[in-house]
Amino acid sequence: MPSQPSGNSGGTDIPMPVLDEPREHCGVFAAWGAPNPARLAYYALFALQHRGQESAGIVATDGERLHRHSDMGLVANVFANEHLEELDAVAASRDGTPGGVIAHNRYSTTGVSSAENAQPFVGQFAAGALAIAHNGNLTNAHVLRRELEEAGAAFHATSDTEVVLHVIAHEAARGAPDPLASAMERLEGAFCFVLLSRDRVEVARDRHGWRPLVLGRTSDGAPVVASETVALDVIGATYEREIEPGEIVTLNDDGVSSRRFAEPSPRLAHCVFEHVYFASPASRVFGSTVQLIREKLGETLWDEAPVAADIVLPMPDSGRSSATGFARASGYPYREGIIPNRYVGRTFIKPTDEERVSAVRLKLNVIAEIVRDKRIVVVDDSVVRGTTTRAKMDQLRKAGAKEIHLRISCPPIRHACYFGVDFPDVQQLVATGRTTEQIRALLGVDSLAYLSLDGLLRCVGNADVPADRYCTACYSGDYPIAVDPSLRKEVLAKNC
Amino acid sequence: MPSQPSGNSGGTDIPMPVLDEPREHCGVFAAWGAPNPARLAYYALFALQHRGQESAGIVATDGERLHRHSDMGLVANVFANEHLEELDAVAASRDGTPGGVIAHNRYSTTGVSSAENAQPFVGQFAAGALAIAHNGNLTNAHVLRRELEEAGAAFHATSDTEVVLHVIAHEAARGAPDPLASAMERLEGAFCFVLLSRDRVEVARDRHGWRPLVLGRTSDGAPVVASETVALDVIGATYEREIEPGEIVTLNDDGVSSRRFAEPSPRLAHCVFEHVYFASPASRVFGSTVQLIREKLGETLWDEAPVAADIVLPMPDSGRSSATGFARASGYPYREGIIPNRYVGRTFIKPTDEERVSAVRLKLNVIAEIVRDKRIVVVDDSVVRGTTTRAKMDQLRKAGAKEIHLRISCPPIRHACYFGVDFPDVQQLVATGRTTEQIRALLGVDSLAYLSLDGLLRCVGNADVPADRYCTACYSGDYPIAVDPSLRKEVLAKNC
Amino acid sequence: MPSQPSGNSGGTDIPMPVLDEPREHCGVFAAWGAPNPARLAYYALFALQHRGQESAGIVATDGERLHRHSDMGLVANVFANEHLEELDAVAASRDGTPGGVIAHNRYSTTGVSSAENAQPFVGQFAAGALAIAHNGNLTNAHVLRRELEEAGAAFHATSDTEVVLHVIAHEAARGAPDPLASAMERLEGAFCFVLLSRDRVEVARDRHGWRPLVLGRTSDGAPVVASETVALDVIGATYEREIEPGEIVTLNDDGVSSRRFAEPSPRLAHCVFEHVYFASPASRVFGSTVQLIREKLGETLWDEAPVAADIVLPMPDSGRSSATGFARASGYPYREGIIPNRYVGRTFIKPTDEERVSAVRLKLNVIAEIVRDKRIVVVDDSVVRGTTTRAKMDQLRKAGAKEIHLRISCPPIRHACYFGVDFPDVQQLVATGRTTEQIRALLGVDSLAYLSLDGLLRCVGNADVPADRYCTACYSGDYPIAVDPSLRKEVLAKNC
Amino acid sequence: MPSQPSGNSGGTDIPMPVLDEPREHCGVFAAWGAPNPARLAYYALFALQHRGQESAGIVATDGERLHRHSDMGLVANVFANEHLEELDAVAASRDGTPGGVIAHNRYSTTGVSSAENAQPFVGQFAAGALAIAHNGNLTNAHVLRRELEEAGAAFHATSDTEVVLHVIAHEAARGAPDPLASAMERLEGAFCFVLLSRDRVEVARDRHGWRPLVLGRTSDGAPVVASETVALDVIGATYEREIEPGEIVTLNDDGVSSRRFAEPSPRLAHCVFEHVYFASPASRVFGSTVQLIREKLGETLWDEAPVAADIVLPMPDSGRSSATGFARASGYPYREGIIPNRYVGRTFIKPTDEERVSAVRLKLNVIAEIVRDKRIVVVDDSVVRGTTTRAKMDQLRKAGAKEIHLRISCPPIRHACYFGVDFPDVQQLVATGRTTEQIRALLGVDSLAYLSLDGLLRCVGNADVPADRYCTACYSGDYPIAVDPSLRKEVLAKNC
Repeated sequence: MPSQPSGNSGGTDIPMPVLDEPREHCGVFAAWGAPNPARLAYYALFALQHRGQESAGIVATDGERLHRHSDMGLVANVFANEHLEELDAVAASRDGTPGGVIAHNRYSTTGVSSAENAQPFVGQFAAGALAIAHNGNLTNAHVLRRELEEAGAAFHATSDTEVVLHVIAHEAARGAPDPLASAMERLEGAFCFVLLSRDRVEVARDRHGWRPLVLGRTSDGAPVVASETVALDVIGATYEREIEPGEIVTLNDDGVSSRRFAEPSPRLAHCVFEHVYFASPASRVFGSTVQLIREKLGETLWDEAPVAADIVLPMPDSGRSSATGFARASGYPYREGIIPNRYVGRTFIKPTDEERVSAVRLKLNVIAEIVRDKRIVVVDDSVVRGTTTRAKMDQLRKAGAKEIHLRISCPPIRHACYFGVDFPDVQQLVATGRTTEQIRALLGVDSLAYLSLDGLLRCVGNADVPADRYCTACYSGDYPIAVDPSLRKEVLAKNC
Repeated sequence: MPSQPSGNSGGTDIPMPVLDEPREHCGVFAAWGAPNPARLAYYALFALQHRGQESAGIVATDGERLHRHSDMGLVANVFANEHLEELDAVAASRDGTPGGVIAHNRYSTTGVSSAENAQPFVGQFAAGALAIAHNGNLTNAHVLRRELEEAGAAFHATSDTEVVLHVIAHEAARGAPDPLASAMERLEGAFCFVLLSRDRVEVARDRHGWRPLVLGRTSDGAPVVASETVALDVIGATYEREIEPGEIVTLNDDGVSSRRFAEPSPRLAHCVFEHVYFASPASRVFGSTVQLIREKLGETLWDEAPVAADIVLPMPDSGRSSATGFARASGYPYREGIIPNRYVGRTFIKPTDEERVSAVRLKLNVIAEIVRDKRIVVVDDSVVRGTTTRAKMDQLRKAGAKEIHLRISCPPIRHACYFGVDFPDVQQLVATGRTTEQIRALLGVDSLAYLSLDGLLRCVGNADVPADRYCTACYSGDYPIAVDPSLRKEVLAKNC
Repeated sequence: MPSQPSGNSGGTDIPMPVLDEPREHCGVFAAWGAPNPARLAYYALFALQHRGQESAGIVATDGERLHRHSDMGLVANVFANEHLEELDAVAASRDGTPGGVIAHNRYSTTGVSSAENAQPFVGQFAAGALAIAHNGNLTNAHVLRRELEEAGAAFHATSDTEVVLHVIAHEAARGAPDPLASAMERLEGAFCFVLLSRDRVEVARDRHGWRPLVLGRTSDGAPVVASETVALDVIGATYEREIEPGEIVTLNDDGVSSRRFAEPSPRLAHCVFEHVYFASPASRVFGSTVQLIREKLGETLWDEAPVAADIVLPMPDSGRSSATGFARASGYPYREGIIPNRYVGRTFIKPTDEERVSAVRLKLNVIAEIVRDKRIVVVDDSVVRGTTTRAKMDQLRKAGAKEIHLRISCPPIRHACYFGVDFPDVQQLVATGRTTEQIRALLGVDSLAYLSLDGLLRCVGNADVPADRYCTACYSGDYPIAVDPSLRKEVLAKNC
Repeated sequence: MPSQPSGNSGGTDIPMPVLDEPREHCGVFAAWGAPNPARLAYYALFALQHRGQESAGIVATDGERLHRHSDMGLVANVFANEHLEELDAVAASRDGTPGGVIAHNRYSTTGVSSAENAQPFVGQFAAGALAIAHNGNLTNAHVLRRELEEAGAAFHATSDTEVVLHVIAHEAARGAPDPLASAMERLEGAFCFVLLSRDRVEVARDRHGWRPLVLGRTSDGAPVVASETVALDVIGATYEREIEPGEIVTLNDDGVSSRRFAEPSPRLAHCVFEHVYFASPASRVFGSTVQLIREKLGETLWDEAPVAADIVLPMPDSGRSSATGFARASGYPYREGIIPNRYVGRTFIKPTDEERVSAVRLKLNVIAEIVRDKRIVVVDDSVVRGTTTRAKMDQLRKAGAKEIHLRISCPPIRHACYFGVDFPDVQQLVATGRTTEQIRALLGVDSLAYLSLDGLLRCVGNADVPADRYCTACYSGDYPIAVDPSLRKEVLAKNC
């Protein structure tokens, strides 16, 4: 069936995910006044590609109008050299200094994937065109949408980002002195926005600070904003500071200025899962370098759940960081006994059930000579549905492992995330309604241990960013803000 | 430069027009209750392809939601068999009888060509999704847009069709008993709309009747609506009647019902250029068959401007109809001495100026043996910029024509059209500020005659549809309604 | 099923023919010493597009190596500007004057369509690379192929053109003083070859002169060769002469030189079907302008088979030329009552049998107001299978024609062509085993007349090229050379 | 410039390599009698994708004819589900048991990349069609080609694989009792062939055993052959044995049979670089598991070149295996301080020199917190040109590394490979004409050590496959067979 009304389904091939990894919604980038800003954005999007692989887009201003190129697909496929040259020509066509760009990598669940929901989203209204890109998840977008529709608004797409545009337009029309700030005040949930109008970039971060958003400077002194510091690194920009919870920062010809649409929440809620899984290991997130945190998770995991074994095996690629920490702490040899196939991507043709070829075996090769007759510790970052973990454990067993001890560098995931992590439905999580022993049996391993919530918080907390500033709702069910329990997956899926 | 914000410019190749033919905006089709309505729409779009070659789209309802497939390009390239099967499955998935579809071929000027403006346009609002497709040109869309923006509306695209959606939403929100009718009342200019919501098709035609729109029945008895009767013919539907000026017709499970949003204007304004150039010669438009009208134009042209000659040559393909009439009336032999190349389309690589290959010569081959040493009459339907006509006359002269007498089957075009015909700017029209003698000299022919306005009106007028019901503003400058003289090309270009 | 071994089936969409028109194999072009020869070739290929729509290709020499661009599809789709620029840069990179190109449009039956058989075909052998393109059909290629295979040759593709390359290589290896001439001597059947090696173009035409091949000069004085004069016209080249039967002409830095591989056959055999259907009406073929011949066919048809009628209708587009002649001779009004849809090409989705939409109705619209209650004469150029003719006659009848008199401007086709025309199998021809009266009944017309063979020959013959120099085997079964009756369709299909 | 004559350059986008990694030519696979052999081949090609990323192809037999699908690009892009279904339908259409397939991944240098050289290559000759795919490099192909051309052969493409087809055809034509064996005897250099004719697969390996080739069985008992055991693993096949040097193995309805075209050379020459770099770490190659060899290389490297340091960093991904060995032996902590970006592939737009963004920084992120103020050992598998290594070392230095000690797990590469490894020209190798101290200075590190040739041989040699059976010519210049020193890069490039 055709997807719900889509701007251009012609030839768009929407790839299906291969394995059941958790996914986050989107990475954002913005720049003002830097030479060739579209090229900078392009490289930054590469560095943020892990945050969203469904579509990519860049919008540039020529001082009067906004120009966009976006498409479904990976950054490398969306942009050809000519697109960047054109967008950079747009930015350069302003009088004086180069203008700005905003850029976006998007992940969204398949159901609402469409070119029409591609980001950055561009709206036309009284004050001119406005482009917006989003990382996070609003929890009251459906309420706002209903209100707007009842007041006579017509929407083009199903994305919550369009709702935000309408709220801004509405605030402007009713004469709010700072329509953007007023609009941000009305939003609930997790959000990091980058917006572009003809003469400036604006960025905003929710008052809880769920998602990371940082400010940096290129070597030319031009300000840039990105979801993660790794995007600054690739373009040779220096890290300056985080965008504060509740802050709006403006980048324009006058430089960088800041205002608040709200005080930071007394209950800050940085997403701990950024450290556990999402963010690049090379990024500095919420004040700590991710890779160091992950090594510490592995060390703490050994402290909490030691086991007699011969070797430590990382589950590539995500388990490698904590596995090195675990190996170091345990003193056991660290060995790469599971080899990932880099070429089995989203578009490969999956084996059918009746074939004797398993998708997991295509994705990972176990080296029998390494695991045979050994007591092995496998370290991974998290378990979601458990089905692929089970298949991987089977492969290790078949390759001759004598004992398999699985160590997971975070607690069991048992609760929905309403703030931007795309977990499957709660009832599909392997840990829902199961004890660790039951999960162990189901995964077919000799022992299983998760890192404790306390252990996790000890690793991420420090003097500057204490542990109580983290959101751990997916582990604990303790939500930093009240959420409507009727918020269904479909509603969540409209966010980015 | 990238086109103005576009949903998906990835790989879209926007072809440039080869020659300076006038162009119209769009063809529409709708059906309710017919089996396989998407296939019907597909064939109907083929028959209406001459009304728009830029993009094509079909929207179907499954009784709950709307599903669309649209893309840039010709109908044959936009739709693969699977798209039609999917859309027909959508329509068939309703309980009971099959649902409906609306469909659209679009032409628009290059500047605002983009997937985001592709039609049918789909909006989401309080009462559910609504799809809309348009043929015509609104003269107050920019005013309505400004009003809506000032009231807090945010727009996604630059098309006037989106404005119409917002006006409908606004009328619904303010409690209008018939929001569609109220919205239509607020529109000025030329329009034929087909709209699809979950449970019905609605069609509306402006009170002046500028553009054609007809109602027919398939052999299954299902009602269909199309811009021209030729679309009924190809799907084996019978012609029933025109949609009346000021009428809204609803097609749904209860059949066909009608209401008025306005009385027909006392000054009806059928576009005479439909007869002269746009409509298919095989269509019945405003009560007359186009081909017969065109033959009559040729006969009248002979009556008005006879000339001593050896042969009559049609300018293919558009001049053929009037040339046969001219030849018959004159008694001169009708000979095909100019051969069009069917393969030189919009995408071919045009010769540069320094090359000795002319684009006209690629498009038309003159047969020297036919024209050499002859006194020839060339009959064409119209002259716009004059540049290609001049090149064609040069070719005939080089091929040895002794005398060239050019006869044009309509008056000189000297005024802008605000109602859906995409002429170039007035100052680019060859007839602007020039006498016929000056044009003759410029085109390099031995004699030139245009059909008189009176002669044209005598041909199109009859007892049922008298000549005073036609709009001839492009020839006479006599506009049926007041138009803001500041309406610039850019404004016009946003319509369809 | 995948096509027989194909070089690149990735994404190639081989369109299916819509209607049962006869087809010929290919058009060729060559140039030496002209500036920008690839662009010239590109425009020439447009003019020759009617001779082959399956693939197109150009090969250029840089003085050392050959460079090719070719692909499946129409000329406009195969070549982008960059391809022409690159090939012209290749030709310009020679010292001194620009080098040469050869070019080819190919039609071939679907079974063996593949990129591997794309032309020009390039072979590597002892003397260097050699490119070759072909128009015609060899009748002994299978014999030569078998001999070569038995001698140890390995072939890459299934095309006969590759066989020719091997024969040339073989003649060179055995020390023939003029390997090309020796190879041409060994070939039987119809052929026009253009060949390109690093330093020259060579062209050869079979000794019977089946297919047209002409020599011309660009305005720069550079020699060019093309299948039809219409290709000379579009590039502004002047016609010089035909390539003689049995002649090899060389174009190189020394100009044009000629030699013979054989004396012209005493039984010349120009294909009369070029005049009847294939060649462009604007071309001069075998010494006569095609359009004039076709007008004469129509006049002669009236002389041979007059009938009382009200109007003459051409069957567009191919019947138009003879219909004007018929109308002139008869004095009946010539009226365009059948309107072709220019957009229904090879790739459109054909209606299934159960649909009430016929492919013919999509392709042609009958104007009922013109044919209703009339005695009409329909003039067409030929009838092949008869199925679409029958459908067209049905449409006319349904539109209200009182009497339908079908006049065909050539005799009934009843015999296979082994010399380059791709008729369907003999048993699929409507005229096979049927009298004219039986065909009339089958087509459902009131009267049917074919032009007589004598009448046809009277029209094409003249003092310079008498009628007995034409091959009329498809009508008469009188083959100019002995052909192996076991030559099956599959064998023929391998030719071009 | 267009590539040298190419079958289909239409739309083919030939990606450029990003970094200067050595590359090998190709991976092969064959199967006979297994259900759905094309799907097996597809999964096997995934597992062998590291051996060639330029094009992929599968040929299947239906018992009579061969059917191929191949295209430029990665396996995932070349094959859609329908291709596999069609090829499997071909194999299933034989009477009785399913037929066979051969398959190929190809790497070739850019100059001769073209669809025409795509593999498997299919030739037509007297005995029927024969498909062939190749891994290796012939050293006398140019000699054989010249002989064949002088004997009258014409070639289609520039690949040596076509030469092999001709040699087989020639041996057959001259009445050789076993033409395949006779042809193999005439070949010099490194080769592993898989061949498919209508009723059997044949595979052959050169007498020196340069490239790996193994025989296995699917769980259905069907024989399969692949370049590496990792391809057996993914399809659940069990390893049986290596194909012997000088052996031809036939797979057909009678099972597996073997013959010899030559005795194994007394000087066997397994490519040691397969262990160092090429082969999958999960494969068993020349009797040893690659990953275990690589760990041992790292341990031996520590033994040979210890250094005082704080941490060991692997150069991802290729240095990871030896780095774990080095870390284990040294006792230093193993830390992942360099993070590869998985999304920066061959098609990304590389930064220009004037941009301040380096391609290396896009590909690798250094984690400053890990390397700052540390004495680090970086372990990598090899250094080729040295340019990217230098850039990586710069990045580490800028991130604050106090001392950088580079350890390379093989000796300096200083000599050309004529046997299938695509090193750059000798003069472009950093080690050519430089001492280790000079290289150290050039790379900007505090110390540099290569593994010694003796150390390398100690690691790879064992009782079953002693060290003297390896070819180490790229390190030592000691070529196992005489090679013509005039063999230039261009000649080598034609191999696969």
